[in-house]
Amino acid sequence: MAQYQITFMPENRAIEIEAGTSLLKAASKAEIYIKSGCGGAGTCGACKVTVVSGEVETTGTGNLNPDQIAHGVRLACQSFVQGDLTVEVPPESRLQEHQVLMGDVKKGILQESTNDILDKYGHKPLANKIRVQLPEPTLTDNASDWARLSVELKRNLPYEKNIEIPLSVLRDLPEILRQANWDVSLTLTDLDDKYTITRIEPGNEQPPYGLAIDIGTTTVVVYLVNLKTGAIEDKQGTYNKQAKFGDDVISRIVYAVETPDSMQEIHQAVIDTINELTDKLLARQNLIQADLTAAVVAANTTMTQLFLGINPRYLRLEPYIPTVSLTPSVPARELGLHILPEALVHSYPSVASYVGGDIVSGALITDMANKEEVTLFIDIGTNGEIVLGNQDWLVSCACSAGPCFEGGGINFGMRAMSGAIERVEIDPETLDVNLTVVGRILPVGICGSGLVDCLAKMRKAGIIDRAGNFQLERSSYSARLRQTPDDKEFVLAWAHQAGGDKDIVITENDVKNLIRAKGAIYAGIRSLLQMVAMDIDLIDRIDIAGGFGNYLNVPDSVQIGLLPDLPAEKYEFIGNSSVKGACLALLSQKAWREAADLARKITYVELSIGTTFMDEFVSALFLPHTDLSLFPTVEG
Amino acid sequence: MAQYQITFMPENRAIEIEAGTSLLKAASKAEIYIKSGCGGAGTCGACKVTVVSGEVETTGTGNLNPDQIAHGVRLACQSFVQGDLTVEVPPESRLQEHQVLMGDVKKGILQESTNDILDKYGHKPLANKIRVQLPEPTLTDNASDWARLSVELKRNLPYEKNIEIPLSVLRDLPEILRQANWDVSLTLTDLDDKYTITRIEPGNEQPPYGLAIDIGTTTVVVYLVNLKTGAIEDKQGTYNKQAKFGDDVISRIVYAVETPDSMQEIHQAVIDTINELTDKLLARQNLIQADLTAAVVAANTTMTQLFLGINPRYLRLEPYIPTVSLTPSVPARELGLHILPEALVHSYPSVASYVGGDIVSGALITDMANKEEVTLFIDIGTNGEIVLGNQDWLVSCACSAGPCFEGGGINFGMRAMSGAIERVEIDPETLDVNLTVVGRILPVGICGSGLVDCLAKMRKAGIIDRAGNFQLERSSYSARLRQTPDDKEFVLAWAHQAGGDKDIVITENDVKNLIRAKGAIYAGIRSLLQMVAMDIDLIDRIDIAGGFGNYLNVPDSVQIGLLPDLPAEKYEFIGNSSVKGACLALLSQKAWREAADLARKITYVELSIGTTFMDEFVSALFLPHTDLSLFPTVEG
Repeated sequence: MAQYQITFMPENRAIEIEAGTSLLKAASKAEIYIKSGCGGAGTCGACKVTVVSGEVETTGTGNLNPDQIAHGVRLACQSFVQGDLTVEVPPESRLQEHQVLMGDVKKGILQESTNDILDKYGHKPLANKIRVQLPEPTLTDNASDWARLSVELKRNLPYEKNIEIPLSVLRDLPEILRQANWDVSLTLTDLDDKYTITRIEPGNEQPPYGLAIDIGTTTVVVYLVNLKTGAIEDKQGTYNKQAKFGDDVISRIVYAVETPDSMQEIHQAVIDTINELTDKLLARQNLIQADLTAAVVAANTTMTQLFLGINPRYLRLEPYIPTVSLTPSVPARELGLHILPEALVHSYPSVASYVGGDIVSGALITDMANKEEVTLFIDIGTNGEIVLGNQDWLVSCACSAGPCFEGGGINFGMRAMSGAIERVEIDPETLDVNLTVVGRILPVGICGSGLVDCLAKMRKAGIIDRAGNFQLERSSYSARLRQTPDDKEFVLAWAHQAGGDKDIVITENDVKNLIRAKGAIYAGIRSLLQMVAMDIDLIDRIDIAGGFGNYLNVPDSVQIGLLPDLPAEKYEFIGNSSVKGACLALLSQKAWREAADLARKITYVELSIGTTFMDEFVSALFLPHTDLSLFPTVEG
Repeated sequence: MAQYQITFMPENRAIEIEAGTSLLKAASKAEIYIKSGCGGAGTCGACKVTVVSGEVETTGTGNLNPDQIAHGVRLACQSFVQGDLTVEVPPESRLQEHQVLMGDVKKGILQESTNDILDKYGHKPLANKIRVQLPEPTLTDNASDWARLSVELKRNLPYEKNIEIPLSVLRDLPEILRQANWDVSLTLTDLDDKYTITRIEPGNEQPPYGLAIDIGTTTVVVYLVNLKTGAIEDKQGTYNKQAKFGDDVISRIVYAVETPDSMQEIHQAVIDTINELTDKLLARQNLIQADLTAAVVAANTTMTQLFLGINPRYLRLEPYIPTVSLTPSVPARELGLHILPEALVHSYPSVASYVGGDIVSGALITDMANKEEVTLFIDIGTNGEIVLGNQDWLVSCACSAGPCFEGGGINFGMRAMSGAIERVEIDPETLDVNLTVVGRILPVGICGSGLVDCLAKMRKAGIIDRAGNFQLERSSYSARLRQTPDDKEFVLAWAHQAGGDKDIVITENDVKNLIRAKGAIYAGIRSLLQMVAMDIDLIDRIDIAGGFGNYLNVPDSVQIGLLPDLPAEKYEFIGNSSVKGACLALLSQKAWREAADLARKITYVELSIGTTFMDEFVSALFLPHTDLSLFPTVEG
């Protein structure tokens, strides 16, 4: 095949690539990551690039207008290399390093609220290290190396359980025993009915470490946990390398089921992501792979199956059946993780295809299953997952909110990274705007929390009515409210105030999308309440997790009818509860056992059965709701 | 590297080989297997070949005489390819397909004596197959595939144990369930505290099979066992491909510890041997690898460690410590065996470095650990392993008999294959000889049972005295007894009656070697008896196993003082008890559990400690013994 040179700007980074490769793939090879919401189908328009010189074969132009096309703008996924090229990748088409939500844990033992949890479950980690001094063998004391070691271990270990040794460790045993002069340190996985020896090394007092891994559809976060002290020593997050196969779980599944190769490729992408993070943590903390003696993964059901290399095909075909909910623990070598090869990798059990291990992990952190009071736990992302209940009963559901709250499907939507508008104030008289921007730089777009704010403030200022229709008659007060050939829009920032060359606006269509998203979440909450025939004000506590939840403004959320109209003191933001639950499991065998019980205890409610959800959804497509009695503190 | 063509005769088989390769290796590549007693050290002289045309680089000529060298005879291990060659490989230098001792089991359930054993332990195999029909999932009955299967299995399985599923099987689960319309057959390993699902396939009634594997230092035997019926369906034996690295365990260990590569090579050689046998059995029985759902290996400690890829270095360094006695069971994929990848491979536990799993397997077959009467169990090969005891106590030892009984260290010694003299009659008057030859062809050498016969008959005919000295004065009766420049010798077959071009003789030196060999075995027996302060005639039963034991003549063995002078009815030949024990374990979980207990129960006596063995050995260097009171039925 002919090879051509592609130069990506403004990096001026050149690579050689085969004729016929898509620009999306070529960029990925150059380590320039381009957004791909639709997984390369040519429909989302997120992967715009400009061909500065050279020719490409274009198979589709999606929503590009003739003017853009004339100026060399192309969809990277629909453009194929035919010769040497120079390609400009604009900032808005890039996946960027951003504030990955890693929770607000500090160096030290978890954060206060989860510290209580660890106290409750007890610090007894999934892997331990023990040092033993063996008597040297003689002609008369001639037991095998392994028998000698077992006897000494049984004397030193607190519980009478079987002790197993994998073949790979057994193969190292004779040399290390003798090199170390029979003084050795052993790493053991301590689980259920047996100990497993995963590492043998010359005697030392180094602690064992573990990894708590949160695999999000968008981002992956890894915490490095000292299993002896319980301290979180370090953390690292980045984009999930699977992003190039599509933005959401459905496009990932579509890609995975194409061929056995694509399944392998998407599985490897998440392994590579975790390994890249792990390598950084190891280098920074001056540790080696073998020091990482256990890992716990929390992720949604699709991410968990892709991580384990289990085809997710049936997750999206009715009746939506996962292959496994109580996932087996597997040695790291079977997955190729950069940790101790025999270390066990545990994945949080899921409830159903769309209520995954991340939610079970979060629910464990809330401790809702052990309280008399009723907790509502919401994880808001592309999907909104909701768990409701107490020590006696637990129900859950998942509702598709769409990508709005993560910046998708909104003209100037973006993730909560530098340049994102996160707070909006609107003067009800002048319609003047006051913005708070992440990183305190010029705004380039608006993130989920900014959108919630914006919606609430636009309603308060009378810019939109309860159904989200723009009130153009108010445009006499301000040039910000205007009609364009395509839509109605409100200007949040003028081009000269913004980091780009265009006015940052929110359109009527954006507003309608947002209302559908908030309506889905609220309808999910109401459907669960109906399921258990419970009034909303009997909820004692609301725990909100997720990338979105961390920055959310409660009064505004109530104002638009996203969250129930309950006193602010009932709300708590618990950050990335998924990774926190993974830390907890690493540090407490009891917590890990309870995770399995919890997954079994939570009843899944399939919202697509019956009409309850649809009825609730339609009722929720107003600001705040058609039934104003549900929002007594909100003016109708 | 330059490539040359080597043609091996009389096969006329040509291969291309790199310059510098030894003829030993080149022959092996051409699938012509040459003896190599010393593992290529150039000392044993077993690998003689004749270079018919072409030149080789010769680094050593060992015990070749100038005449041989002038006629092109070379040691294959010391000759290296330098150009195109034609090489003749004589029959006496070849490892040949021979009567591999596979036990006298017939198609059907074991043989009668072990059938009793199976009845006793109960037929409950290490792997089972079960067929289940699952209810199809729906939106309301939406448990995961694995949860659905577990529920149904728990309902169908007899014991309440954990059910585990390896990741590789889990990955197959969703597709097979749906292809099979939810009617599936599952193969389970049923062991100790859990079931493990090792295979899932569309519903069928095919039985599961297992492999019983006896890894001898010289030969490897594999039985194919129907785990459902208990029938032995087929069997296959061949040389251990490790033979090219040396004849005995010591030369194998020496080779293995040279480099990590040599360890890997010798490990792979036995895996390849087993796979070759397995492939033949599968082809003949029209089965596939996945039908083989369990394997049990019985082997001496060195063979077991090499099989598992555990370096045997410390087995031959004082104080002779094995890495492991109670070996872990490992999935077949970790060893690369040609059976179901997740099938567990179990290796019989050993007692000590020189009393291995083959002896534990044999001892289990004798049932000696459950009887009130005292059994002496002897496995005679290059090493003689001995177990003595009953239900209350068991002691064991190993004594190095040397390779005599397997044809080594004797001028015309050979294994019990076609052309081997296996019975010898000598007329006490005329010294005329009457021979029985394996395969009823012309004799080419003499095997172990022939040697025992020969020694007894030479003593009876007065050809040798009690110390093994030749009585040349008897040469007046026959030209067969003669003095040569090198030694004294007795002609068993004249050249014109033999398959070669030389007289087949037994020399005084041969006789001395034989006496040392039989002396070692008898001294081992006596040492054990002394250990437990027991008189020899309190032994109730003597079970003899091994390649040698199968063809042994008891009266002759007693005559030369190899075996104790006890009534013939106390003796039983149990054949290849090692492979029989492997079959038993496959078919009975209880037997397999008892094997571990048995290995622990047997006390190992290290004969190199103290002077007992040496004193006994010296006393046993007479025919039958210095202490004639031990052999009342034998004339002194």
